[in-house]
Amino acid sequence: MTKVRRFQTISQCVFDSQSTVIIFDQRLLEVSDAFRAWIRKQKKVYPVKAGEKLKSLDKFPQHCAQLANLAKDIPSRKMTVVSIGGGSVGDFSGFFASCFKRGVRLVHIPSTWLAAIDSAHGGKTALNLAGVKNQIGSFYSASEVILVQDLLLSQPSLLAADALSEVLKIGLIKGGKCWSTVQKIKQSDYSQSAMTAQLWLALPELIAAKMSIVKKDPQEKKGVRAVLNLGHTFGHVLESHLRWTHGKSIGHGLHFALELSHAKGLLDSKLYGQLVALLADQFKIKRLPQYRIPIKKLKELMLKDKKQLSSGKVQFVLLQKLGRVVQTEISINDVVLFAVKSKWAQK
Amino acid sequence: MTKVRRFQTISQCVFDSQSTVIIFDQRLLEVSDAFRAWIRKQKKVYPVKAGEKLKSLDKFPQHCAQLANLAKDIPSRKMTVVSIGGGSVGDFSGFFASCFKRGVRLVHIPSTWLAAIDSAHGGKTALNLAGVKNQIGSFYSASEVILVQDLLLSQPSLLAADALSEVLKIGLIKGGKCWSTVQKIKQSDYSQSAMTAQLWLALPELIAAKMSIVKKDPQEKKGVRAVLNLGHTFGHVLESHLRWTHGKSIGHGLHFALELSHAKGLLDSKLYGQLVALLADQFKIKRLPQYRIPIKKLKELMLKDKKQLSSGKVQFVLLQKLGRVVQTEISINDVVLFAVKSKWAQK
Repeated sequence: MTKVRRFQTISQCVFDSQSTVIIFDQRLLEVSDAFRAWIRKQKKVYPVKAGEKLKSLDKFPQHCAQLANLAKDIPSRKMTVVSIGGGSVGDFSGFFASCFKRGVRLVHIPSTWLAAIDSAHGGKTALNLAGVKNQIGSFYSASEVILVQDLLLSQPSLLAADALSEVLKIGLIKGGKCWSTVQKIKQSDYSQSAMTAQLWLALPELIAAKMSIVKKDPQEKKGVRAVLNLGHTFGHVLESHLRWTHGKSIGHGLHFALELSHAKGLLDSKLYGQLVALLADQFKIKRLPQYRIPIKKLKELMLKDKKQLSSGKVQFVLLQKLGRVVQTEISINDVVLFAVKSKWAQK
Repeated sequence: MTKVRRFQTISQCVFDSQSTVIIFDQRLLEVSDAFRAWIRKQKKVYPVKAGEKLKSLDKFPQHCAQLANLAKDIPSRKMTVVSIGGGSVGDFSGFFASCFKRGVRLVHIPSTWLAAIDSAHGGKTALNLAGVKNQIGSFYSASEVILVQDLLLSQPSLLAADALSEVLKIGLIKGGKCWSTVQKIKQSDYSQSAMTAQLWLALPELIAAKMSIVKKDPQEKKGVRAVLNLGHTFGHVLESHLRWTHGKSIGHGLHFALELSHAKGLLDSKLYGQLVALLADQFKIKRLPQYRIPIKKLKELMLKDKKQLSSGKVQFVLLQKLGRVVQTEISINDVVLFAVKSKWAQK
């Protein structure tokens, strides 16, 4: 099991410098003095430029050669890879750690809220193949995830807001106490620092909520873990097509999933109305009808979805009520028809 | 658990052509009419040139792009990768299957005796990084290993002989009944076809012997599985430095391990003498003093060994008696000194 630890500042993180290779987002050098001072003391460090290009499989062999050179005098059984960054840095470092010498120890220090809430937990690693996201990867859990408060607080406010979609998602899936916690986190009513202070407090509960689902189905083979894809099937289409951030895409993907849940008669009109209003008011997720996706593109992107089941069908997670999600198989044609009718797509 | 099945001919292997991608050694087209006829009927096929170049990480992204294109209409949960070839094809296909869409179903059909006895079983996959063998890989067991008699019998006799080192190794490690079985397989006293007929009969026992060790420690974390490295620490040096085949290298690596076991006082002189005579007479493994390794090269290659423990030490498996191996930690300097003294290496 992954151990989650919380520190106030990066200087509290101590690793054996002989056997640790630190892969980190080079942007952190600019945003945090504490980080800059800390990283200067580490021996084997590998700065990377975060983003989807880092996850390109084409560049992976070069990265591996450089990392292997850094690690050349470390016995593989003693080696630790520490990843400090957001989702892309974690996906890249996690995949490297999973396959270097058939697997070395991995520690995540997420520097973005999105990674701290979601991607650092649950053991998914991924690279992109020929422009298609996450086609290559592994299930490889970190031994530790270390949450560092001052690192998370140093990120730009836009990135913090971007994490709220995953917060919202986990609240909808779990319902109950978790949903109450999520409702306390508001983007619009509070100042930025109040919001992130709320997020920091909510982190343990949000992580536990995700992990309670992951541990039932760590390798996504039983269909249990797949509920975490709420909002993602359509969200990934938006992310690929419009090049939106992950958070913004998933936020709108959740909106689409609520609309579809309502249209299918699964989600009643009252709760649907409340949730859509909450998305708009509290999380700033509103429909933007000018972004209509050509149906040809929509079909093409859905066919590439990893959750595609058999020709023409896709797994789609819908909401019945707070804390109750339903996995359905829907034909891609049905999704497209609904998207046209509800003005997300056009001919 | 991996299921092992045995067929007389490749035409008995039936896969769903829509969801199966077959990666195969293109040399098989030349050596087997039955294979050529069978592969012509399959839909999604990917011929490769077997050998270490196939395992280069540098070429992996291109292979992945082509394989992903072949697989583009297969839902990942239904996909099977079938690997038909020897060790290099299995290592490559296994790694691909382990990371494509975070893992798809894998079936091995080993076409060489070495793969049928050893590499197809136990779930190790591997690619080479910057010329160093097996630096990238995963533990990923096949769902099935299918042993096809006519495919194995179609391989050149030299390759069959090459497999005997691994047979010998497993016999030494297990002792008892397994050792009796191994002694029945003789390279020099029998005709080639008699030897391979013996091998075919012995396969289930040899595989069960290996798997009895693997299942105690599938990811090589407890030190149990490491006993399978008998002969490999020095064997890999010979393989890298002299570019010998794996079998020949491991055969001579076993010879070296017996010499070192004897020199350390672990293996008594009587059994040592018997085993060295048996290696020479029955398995054609004799010392060839003209291949002396420069000590600088020997040190360098041992430092790259994955079993290197901490600076200057390496894990070395020694033989105490038949069926009893001992794992030791030996300083690389000690191994080098012994290699010079016993004329395997020179200044």
